Order: sequence, then C-alpha cells, then structure tokens
Amino acid sequence: MPRSTIEFWFDFASTYSYVSLMRADELIVTSGLRVKYMPFLLGPIFRAQGWDSSPFNVYPAKGKYMWRDMERLCARYGLPLKRPDTFPPFALLATRVALAAREEGFLAAYCKAVFHAEYGLGRDITDKQLIAAILEQVGADPVRWLEKAGEEATKQALKDRVDAAQAKGIFGAPTFITPDGELFWGNDRLEQALEWVLRRR
Amino acid sequence: MPRSTIEFWFDFASTYSYVSLMRADELIVTSGLRVKYMPFLLGPIFRAQGWDSSPFNVYPAKGKYMWRDMERLCARYGLPLKRPDTFPPFALLATRVALAAREEGFLAAYCKAVFHAEYGLGRDITDKQLIAAILEQVGADPVRWLEKAGEEATKQALKDRVDAAQAKGIFGAPTFITPDGELFWGNDRLEQALEWVLRRR
Repeated sequence: MPRSTIEFWFDFASTYSYVSLMRADELIVTSGLRVKYMPFLLGPIFRAQGWDSSPFNVYPAKGKYMWRDMERLCARYGLPLKRPDTFPPFALLATRVALAAREEGFLAAYCKAVFHAEYGLGRDITDKQLIAAILEQVGADPVRWLEKAGEEATKQALKDRVDAAQAKGIFGAPTFITPDGELFWGNDRLEQALEWVLRRR
Repeated sequence: MPRSTIEFWFDFASTYSYVSLMRADELIVTSGLRVKYMPFLLGPIFRAQGWDSSPFNVYPAKGKYMWRDMERLCARYGLPLKRPDTFPPFALLATRVALAAREEGFLAAYCKAVFHAEYGLGRDITDKQLIAAILEQVGADPVRWLEKAGEEATKQALKDRVDAAQAKGIFGAPTFITPDGELFWGNDRLEQALEWVLRRR
C-alpha cells in the first residue's frame, strides 16, 4: 500500500461510519493523503462475539446514548440526520454493489450517496430501486452494477473482505488503518489517524 | 447543581478514566468551570449487560486495540503507562475510600494518585498499604479514612451511587454529565462536554 494511503473500513449500517465518511474526503485530501474505501460487513464479526444485532440494540443504554451523540455530532458537522425505520439497516445489497465497484472511480460518490440516503434522509437501503437511482446519480449504469453485485465473484470478494477485517483485528466501524498497520477505531479517531501518517511520511 | 459544574463519573478500573482524570483538572479549570468527581463501579452495570469481566477481556480484539490506543494516547498526553498484572484491577477498596471522602478537599488529589499508581506505575490498588500511603501523600489520615471506607454508610453510599449511574443511563466510563443533563461518554468527549457547557452558560 502506498505510504500516503489510509484504509477506511466501514459498514453501511454503522451510524458513526456515516459521520466519518461524509467528512473524510475533505480532511484526507486537504492533508495531502489518499483514502481507500473498504466497505465490509460487521454482522459476521458481531455474531462471532455473540451478538445477534447491533450492540446499540443489544445494549439499550448504549443505543439511546448513540442516537443522542449522533444528533450532537451531526449538528456539529452540519450533517442531516434522519433515523431509518429499521435499525440496523440490512446493508447486504448496498455493500455488494460497493464491492463490485471497488476499483471504480465512482465508489466514493456512491458510498456518500448511500449514507446520505440512509442516515441523512432515513431511506430504506434494502430497496433495489433506491440503489439503482443512486448508481444513476453517480454516473454508473444501474443494470450493469446491480447484476455484478449478484455475481458469485462479488459475493466471494465480500466474504474475503470480512475475513480480512477479522484477521486485521477489526471489531467495529469506522476503522482507519495506516500504511504502517496502526488501527484507529471510531469517528473520533480520524484526526489522530491522519496525524499518525503525516508525522511518519 | 451549579450551572458551571460538570460531573465526571469514573471507575478506578477504567483505563480511559485514567487518561481523562489526569487531564480533566487543567482543562476544566482553564475553562472557568468546575468538576465534581463521581467515582462509581462499572461491575454491577456490566453484569446487568451479561458481562462477567471488562468488555476488554470479554472481547479480545477490543482489548488488544484498547491497550495500543492507550499507549498512543498516553504518549500524546505525556502520561506514563504501565499495565498492572491483573486487569481489570479490583477497585472496591479504592472506590470506597473515595466515597467516604466524597466531600473532602483532598478527593481530586487522592483520585489522581490512585490512577497514577495503578496505570502510571502498574501497582496493585487492592493493596491496603498502597492506599494508606496515597492517603498520607495527599494529607489525609490513613487510619481514619480506611476505617470510614469500611463503614456501612459508605458501602450504602457506593451502592446508591451505582444505582444513580444506572438511572442516569451511564453504561461506561468516563462519562461527563453537564448541568442540563447531557451525557458525554469517553475520554474523547471531554472537550465536547466542556464546549457544551461553555456555549450554554
């Protein structure tokens, strides 16, 4: 991995990943660094820890706090926030599309648009029509990419990515990984991850 | 509660509480605010969530990350860090002394000295001699306060405090509570808690 690229591991179901992804581009680019978006699924990792849902559902006090914290953070960053009807949203389709398009130039715009629809507007990202509209919006062919999302190679690529996350010690999202292998977990660590890379370049 | 006082809820066993408590005084005082230290025990709250130990032991990937994160944070803040042999340390005695002394002027100095011994020097805070030495160091009578720590009224005060923490929706430490009742969880939220109060004074 180039010495100036930060890996940004996230799950579309993760609220704090929404906040991070919306502000990462600007922060990383103004730092002179690059970002590699690494969408993955936390579900299998949570299940391995014995949770059958988001920890924010498993632990209600934590969940209540998280939504209040999100309100404050979104106000601070000037981001819209609307809670979707179902939490956590089932992000499999959105994530497979992102994996299918992992080398494409539109990936960053796609990820932002998904998060904006989901947590900015409270829309249902399991809806294929919504994902198609987002693909169109970012200049990608909806038919082609939805088809690729369903291919065996894409499914396998996603499984491999979840395995890689687990092997790297990732247990939550967002997680930022520096070129020298440091993990920084949480939206509140984005700046520290950037500093880490800048001090070592 | 006065409009300029932040409640700082912490557990002596909590590593991130160590980092926060060491830097809170300076930050809060230079902000023109006051702090009320609220030591409590997370154990009963964790047990109610189904954990029989620290989440950093229950979830090894999280634990591994936490220690690395602590190394980085302590380097950033210029704090010593030495891992005690037993984690989490059993903080009952240290906490009962703090509850007994909850209205005393030496409370802040005592709490700092306990954390410094525990996570700065890696010493065993279940050791009564150590707690006695710390009390002496902060100008308090060790015999008197160790005796008060064992009194029924102190034990009850600690139980009441844990109940109060749970009632307030506290699920981790450190937690900062503002005069208008906002909860901020985590060392990384200390600055945001201060800003919150300063903007509303």
